[in-house]
Formats: sequence, C-alpha cells, structure tokens
Amino acid sequence: MKRLSDIGEDALIERLVAGFPREGLVTGPGDDCAVVDPGRGRLVLLKTDAIVAGVHFEDTAPASRVGWKAAARVISDFAAMGGRPEHLLVTVALPRTTPVRWAEGLYRGIRRCLDRCGGVLAGGETTSVPDGSSAVISVAGTGSVARGKMVLRSGGKPGDLLAVTGRLGGSIGGRHLRFEPRLAEGEWLASHGATAMMDLSDGLAKDLPRLAAACGCGAVVDRGKLPRHRGCSVEQAMGDGEDYELLVALDPRKWRSRDWPEGLAPVSVIGRLAEEGDVFEGGWDHFSP
Amino acid sequence: MKRLSDIGEDALIERLVAGFPREGLVTGPGDDCAVVDPGRGRLVLLKTDAIVAGVHFEDTAPASRVGWKAAARVISDFAAMGGRPEHLLVTVALPRTTPVRWAEGLYRGIRRCLDRCGGVLAGGETTSVPDGSSAVISVAGTGSVARGKMVLRSGGKPGDLLAVTGRLGGSIGGRHLRFEPRLAEGEWLASHGATAMMDLSDGLAKDLPRLAAACGCGAVVDRGKLPRHRGCSVEQAMGDGEDYELLVALDPRKWRSRDWPEGLAPVSVIGRLAEEGDVFEGGWDHFSP
Repeated sequence: MKRLSDIGEDALIERLVAGFPREGLVTGPGDDCAVVDPGRGRLVLLKTDAIVAGVHFEDTAPASRVGWKAAARVISDFAAMGGRPEHLLVTVALPRTTPVRWAEGLYRGIRRCLDRCGGVLAGGETTSVPDGSSAVISVAGTGSVARGKMVLRSGGKPGDLLAVTGRLGGSIGGRHLRFEPRLAEGEWLASHGATAMMDLSDGLAKDLPRLAAACGCGAVVDRGKLPRHRGCSVEQAMGDGEDYELLVALDPRKWRSRDWPEGLAPVSVIGRLAEEGDVFEGGWDHFSP
Repeated sequence: MKRLSDIGEDALIERLVAGFPREGLVTGPGDDCAVVDPGRGRLVLLKTDAIVAGVHFEDTAPASRVGWKAAARVISDFAAMGGRPEHLLVTVALPRTTPVRWAEGLYRGIRRCLDRCGGVLAGGETTSVPDGSSAVISVAGTGSVARGKMVLRSGGKPGDLLAVTGRLGGSIGGRHLRFEPRLAEGEWLASHGATAMMDLSDGLAKDLPRLAAACGCGAVVDRGKLPRHRGCSVEQAMGDGEDYELLVALDPRKWRSRDWPEGLAPVSVIGRLAEEGDVFEGGWDHFSP
C-alpha cells in the first residue's frame, strides 16, 4: 500500500485534483493562488495555507509570531501574483489544554500582520484536536489584482532573467516567523517586466524547478550570485526554504534594474530560464520519503 | 493559567476577534458566514470550517464520506444564509503514513459533494502533521446570495415562529457523514418570511440560544413538536448535534406552511421567539470543561 511519503507532495496534489471541473477559473490548483474573474474590476485571488506545530513552528515559538507567520504566508502568495490581500478566514484546531493566552497571542500576531499588510479578518472557526495532537492553524483568504497586471507561474520563456527579492537561507534561525510579505515588490515587478512569479516557501532548489516546469523550460542559476543571508552557504540559500522571497522571471527587454524603487527590498538577478536547465537537489517536501 | 477548556468556545471566539477592524464587512465573525458587498450583483459569502480525526470522524470512517462531510459543512453554512457555494479551497494536514488511497478517497467525496451542490474546487494545500497527530481537513469557501435575500442570525423578533428542516437526533450513527446541505430549502425560506437562520451543527440546545441571543430575545420550544429521527429521544434531538438542518425564525404574517414546495425536506414549526425564553442545556462545545 502506497503512503503519502512514498510519492511526495507534488505528485500527491496532481493526483488529488485530477479531473475536477475548473469552470469559471482563470487559473486553478497549481499556481500560488487560484484566480477568478468576477466579470469586471479587479480579478479575485483565492488562497489557503496551513501551519502545524512541530512542522512549521516549535512549541516554544511566541504565539504572536506564529499568528504573524500563518497570515503572512497567505499574503505572500497574493504578493506572488502581483496582488494584495482583501479578506482572511482563520481556522484554529487546538488541544483543549492550550492556554487562552496562547490563542490570544496568536490572534494578536494575525492582527499585526493585517495592520501591516492590509486585509480584513472576515471570520474563522475554532475546533479542538485530541490531546497530544499538534495544533493546526489554517488561513484562507481572498485577494485581488489589477486586471492585466496578474503574474502567473507559467508565463516565462527561455532567455528571461531570473531574480529574487531580499536574501536567502537560514530562515530557521527565526526569520521564518517574522518575514515581510513582498507586496510592494510584487506589485512593482508585475508592472515592470515580470513574466512569471512565485514565492519561495520550499527553497529555491524545490521551487525554481516548479516555476521552470510551469513555463515549459529549464533554469540556469549562477550560484555565486545568490543573495545570501550572513553566515549562510550556497547550499543553505538553495535548500533551506521558508524564505518567502519572490522568485521572478523578467523579460530582459523590459527589465531595468536601475529603475528599482528605493525603499523596497533589494532584487538580485541570479540566472535565466533556458531550453535546457540545471538539475537541482534539495529543498523541502512535506511527503518526501 | 486559564486553558481553552476553562472558558468554552463562544467566549473564546469573542475574545479572539475583539477589536479587529471590520471595514467593508456587511457582517463579520459571529454569523454562519461573513458577508462582503462587492458593490454590485450578488453579495459574497465567506466561510471556513474544519474537521478533525477523532473529533468529527473516526479513523474507520470511509475517506469519501469524510470528504463529503468536510465540504458539506461549509456548504450548509451558505445554505443558512439563503445562498449557494461558488469556490472551495481545501487544506489537508495528514500524517506522512496516510495511505495515498485514503487521500484520494477524501477528494472523491469532496468532488461528489460539489457535483451535487454546485461550486468549484479552486485550490488547496497539503501539509504533513507529526506522526501520531490527528488529520485535520480545513475547507474554506466563497458563496453568494442575491442582494436583499440574505438571512442573518440576528433578524428575528419576539413572536416569530421557529422551525427546523428535516429531522433531528442520532446523527452519530452515520448521518453526520452523509447529510445533505439544505440549499434549496434555505433559498426558499429566505424568500418566504425567514427573519433569522442558521444551520444546526452543535445541537438545538446549543445553537438555538445563539440564534436567540443574536436576535436579542429568548426562545420557547414545544419539545413534543421536535421532528425526531426514528429511535431518538427528545434529549437526543435537542443535544446530539451534527444534524446540519436549518433552524429558522419566520415572520408569522408571511409564513404559510401549505406553500412549502414538494421535493424539499419537510419543515416543522417547533416554537417561537419570545421576550423571555426557555433555558436550554446540552449540545456540543469544543472547549467546554
């Protein structure tokens, strides 16, 4: 009998959503967000995400940081489409023995994130899990993106430049709990030559092949150009994951690095899309063997 | 130190969402769904919900039934507003040892429910939970309701009739895994005198006081009139929970039971809203002591 750890996350998702009708979706499962066209005005973005105690955060992590992370992960996906958050729904599944103060701290972190990034808490759900089970915090949200400014994972072509915002690696030291969703950067990139975009959650080594595959090509990375956090090796920058920086393919005829606005996180060109790409190893897979 | 089991679910939710801005929400946390007005056309409904192994379903439950339940619970909340489902987002947090076949069965049940009720799977998320932790399936969704036909929990007045669809009690025997969201019934009630409505998830004894409190009054129930499933006592019909029938307050000047359409689940008048109501005991609270 095959178990989830035998087939890995990407193959699992592919199996699960195969055959579902996609009527009315601009894009469905497989991109950072699903996109719905309401017929006029901005396009609607839909996203859900979850974090689990013992997987995405340690029990010792401050509750407000956990709340920030739960909300910021979803908002980062809106950023990766060139969009912004609108309404969030929060589901918390907690052991009955959880301190009330912890739950309040969690929500305080969610609120801080919404105050910072925009978006309104629209509702939620609380449920118990059996004693000894891990807490799960699931956040779903709606966002929006200007018509004509949306960036999918799939629009890149061989020859496009590859770039990332910020720096990579070592997020486990604490940055995975306090990262800033790259909303302004995503919106700016969407208007200045981005052909494909995603946020880096599982590490460049895992996520870049996904972006390249969605574009139907390969990717070449100049590892010496990877913007690394202090003390991080190239391997860490490639594989640590949970950076939540944007990975973007850029049309070289439209991209001018000198136009990059002050005040935004830096952007670094790290390689290019190509007919034949490098092979990458590493990164995070929830169900890898 | 206070724990969640010391304060109960309703008090917890009240604490968590206190102070959050609600800009742009027609109604926010506290009703069956949050409601957003996009400015024109149908109103947008937002809802999230979760089911947990060992709490909402046993490990021996067929996976497709579990999937049906996960989707149907959210859709039942759209029904309770007089609305219908549009797009669903599914988050599954599963142990790595879960059989692939189980995950596929889960999604088959979700698909059956969408085929039956309408609505499109827009996306999802998969994550692992530590070994030994319970599986959590969280479903978020968008729905819609015709402008002017939305029914909140809070619109009832003393003197309004109280009614329920279908029959109550004994869902633990299996009906909690295969109930039909009362979409047609909810839409019809919304157009024929409903002043307040919700779906019954935690039992009439727990949910009716919530509806009455939202209306700022009490409720009187004629227990002899409760429509019960075969073999169920009045206490079971009051307290078992997970019926997912609609509880509705009806304007007695508009309600005519003889107009109730053939083909819909039966509807039964069980009491009325009143200035001073009965006291109810029982029902389900995830965090009760």
